[in-house]
Amino acid sequence: MTEPNVVTGRPQKRAETKTVAVVGFGNIGTGVIELLYQKGVAGLKLVKVIDKDLERQRHITLPEHYLGRDWRTVVDDPKVDIVVELIGGIEPAKSILVAALKNGKDVVTANKMLLAQEGQHIFRLTATSNRHIGFRASFLGCHSLIHEFRQAGTAAKKFRRIYAILNGTCNYVLSTMTRDGKIFEEALKEAQIKGYAEADPADDIDGIDTANKIRILLGLISNSYQTASPFPVEGIRDITAQDIEYATELGYSVKLVGVIEPKENIFHVSVRPALVPRMSLLGSLEEAYNGTEIEDEYGVVSGLVAPGAGTYPTADAVIKDLFDIVEGRPMPMPDSAQTIVLDDSKNEERRYYLRFSVVDQAGVLAQICNIFWKYNISIAAVIQKEAISQEFAPVVITTHLAQEGNLQAAIEQVDKLDTIKAKTKIMRIL
Amino acid sequence: MTEPNVVTGRPQKRAETKTVAVVGFGNIGTGVIELLYQKGVAGLKLVKVIDKDLERQRHITLPEHYLGRDWRTVVDDPKVDIVVELIGGIEPAKSILVAALKNGKDVVTANKMLLAQEGQHIFRLTATSNRHIGFRASFLGCHSLIHEFRQAGTAAKKFRRIYAILNGTCNYVLSTMTRDGKIFEEALKEAQIKGYAEADPADDIDGIDTANKIRILLGLISNSYQTASPFPVEGIRDITAQDIEYATELGYSVKLVGVIEPKENIFHVSVRPALVPRMSLLGSLEEAYNGTEIEDEYGVVSGLVAPGAGTYPTADAVIKDLFDIVEGRPMPMPDSAQTIVLDDSKNEERRYYLRFSVVDQAGVLAQICNIFWKYNISIAAVIQKEAISQEFAPVVITTHLAQEGNLQAAIEQVDKLDTIKAKTKIMRIL
Repeated sequence: MTEPNVVTGRPQKRAETKTVAVVGFGNIGTGVIELLYQKGVAGLKLVKVIDKDLERQRHITLPEHYLGRDWRTVVDDPKVDIVVELIGGIEPAKSILVAALKNGKDVVTANKMLLAQEGQHIFRLTATSNRHIGFRASFLGCHSLIHEFRQAGTAAKKFRRIYAILNGTCNYVLSTMTRDGKIFEEALKEAQIKGYAEADPADDIDGIDTANKIRILLGLISNSYQTASPFPVEGIRDITAQDIEYATELGYSVKLVGVIEPKENIFHVSVRPALVPRMSLLGSLEEAYNGTEIEDEYGVVSGLVAPGAGTYPTADAVIKDLFDIVEGRPMPMPDSAQTIVLDDSKNEERRYYLRFSVVDQAGVLAQICNIFWKYNISIAAVIQKEAISQEFAPVVITTHLAQEGNLQAAIEQVDKLDTIKAKTKIMRIL
Repeated sequence: MTEPNVVTGRPQKRAETKTVAVVGFGNIGTGVIELLYQKGVAGLKLVKVIDKDLERQRHITLPEHYLGRDWRTVVDDPKVDIVVELIGGIEPAKSILVAALKNGKDVVTANKMLLAQEGQHIFRLTATSNRHIGFRASFLGCHSLIHEFRQAGTAAKKFRRIYAILNGTCNYVLSTMTRDGKIFEEALKEAQIKGYAEADPADDIDGIDTANKIRILLGLISNSYQTASPFPVEGIRDITAQDIEYATELGYSVKLVGVIEPKENIFHVSVRPALVPRMSLLGSLEEAYNGTEIEDEYGVVSGLVAPGAGTYPTADAVIKDLFDIVEGRPMPMPDSAQTIVLDDSKNEERRYYLRFSVVDQAGVLAQICNIFWKYNISIAAVIQKEAISQEFAPVVITTHLAQEGNLQAAIEQVDKLDTIKAKTKIMRIL
């Protein structure tokens, strides 16, 4: 030991070495192989790497006998103990995991889309096969907190809310818009140039990726692999530079936030852009970072910040999963078939940020106020600036606590006014 | 189960119920007893509560037969499995833990002063007695990250640095000074009124409490219960409103930061006020929160924010410790006698914030620049404002990377100048 390790706790009994096959020799795969093969991890032995394309240039070279093109050769190979799936998407990823589990192998995956959509099948098969599944890399940003919660799990630890920023692309785009005053399209382009966003960023910026992670988290929290019904998911495409500017003026940051709030046996779940206090764990999250805030039953808030993506963080999570399997203490997974009940959130009381697109400001404001009065919504602040070169000017209103159902009804009515020229932008203030 | 628990992972075999005695019926003790006795925790049974003062009014009432005044009755009682020490200070806390361990009991403590000063004795005794010790509550703010690290421990996980804010009083004082423009004394008074600071706040504001926690952390990281030699500890008493103002102007927050940086087998350790970027996990930490940033060997930064004090967070940590003991997976503890080597940090290269108290500004600046030039220190920024009603005006200089040894030598020389009227304030920029 030439450098100090973070080795704490008494020495554990070393289990026998497990053999590992990696399917998918892309960026993450390369990172995992670098750690497993070049650097070496005690108790783990890389035996095979599968990829359709073996000609592509990679910054790591493996001897020929490690390489193969057909994943069936490893899931059927009795000499392979653990199969690591790093190809993403539903198929053939699902078939690989299913075959590996059925053949008595443990599995590790970074595939959040698969676990969100097919978790019911995969987790149940893992449980019935009495195998282990490692999936830390599928929701990188918050696994530590889950662990912390699980530790006190049977001590009946409850929580009031989880707010999580789980998509690096969105956070990069929103924090660049905030810092540099850029518009959405410019910030997204910058994220793509810097490698924080895919060529096709739809899954990220439309909130799908965040929703997948929230679904996995929800399964862990409720300990159920049943697929929960759909919940509201909204992306960040229509956040304007003005929204950001007004939010900043009001002391907030705009973030794409996944929300899980339990009420008795029912969960309120959503993924939406929201205003969060600028000087808070989530509000101060810059670049492509992920962050999670959790409030327990006593109102005590803890938080975690971690890289949400990137080759090394993801590869590191895969290695941790492998390591846990070798040590015989794998990550918990949802293993009951209990139905997860979601509410319709109409009864929730929240504060709101509303951006109206109005033509005749003076007249409309009175109309809006009347509608709000009818629905018992009281106004906290109004920002209305002189229109310079715009066809119509934005009016921004923040509300005091208002019932979501009332607010939606009120906005529906406001949006029918002749003087309102576009759909009103609604964001929660968390 | 009427509310959703965060119960993840397969059901664990339930161990037999353990009996618990609590020594210390103060604030934390009351919180622990509330959870153990009123609420109930599976696997744990409160059997005795010891306090010198049983007459004091508490918001929880226990039947007479639970109460006692003499801690010896519980450490000698064969019917007690676990002793929880919550009285603080060195004695009799140390004697209680020692006697309990020697009598074959597991122990839980929130006593950071004791573990920092006498950890060598306590941890060794725990190891040789083959007992467990829970001490999460002694460094609340960062135990999750340690756990995370330990998980990958034997996978040779290394880190480059840990920066930690571990004292709620200091963070409350510094963030109040920043937000409200208050001077140190006012902010401290406010912290005392709000219950964030003790009547005698010396241990907190002079950095002793942070240093105790850093010492415990260092023991965990190096897996050694040997007492490390002293390291630089500096408090926040002489941080001026102007320091805060200048730091803000430069985009930084002033925080009391514990630093652990390994270099080969040697650690650089210190506790000092420092400038950290305002929009960062540590820089944005408000109120009495604690936070930890950890950078791994790949440059990946993770962070954790958690309440650093308070009845419930501390009581909750004690319960987690108890629970882990019942479940047979107690927190790791330092258990080797390896010497922890600290460096003198003179070779470290850092950026610095320097506040000079000068009389004749124009002349002095030239003198300072000449001295800096001699020691190879280059200036990044200068802030010098017109003095209004002050005897002498502050000049603030930030440097580019400079060797700590050079910087100290330069400042020593500057402070001898006739035109320098007070000791120059030196803070690192992290």
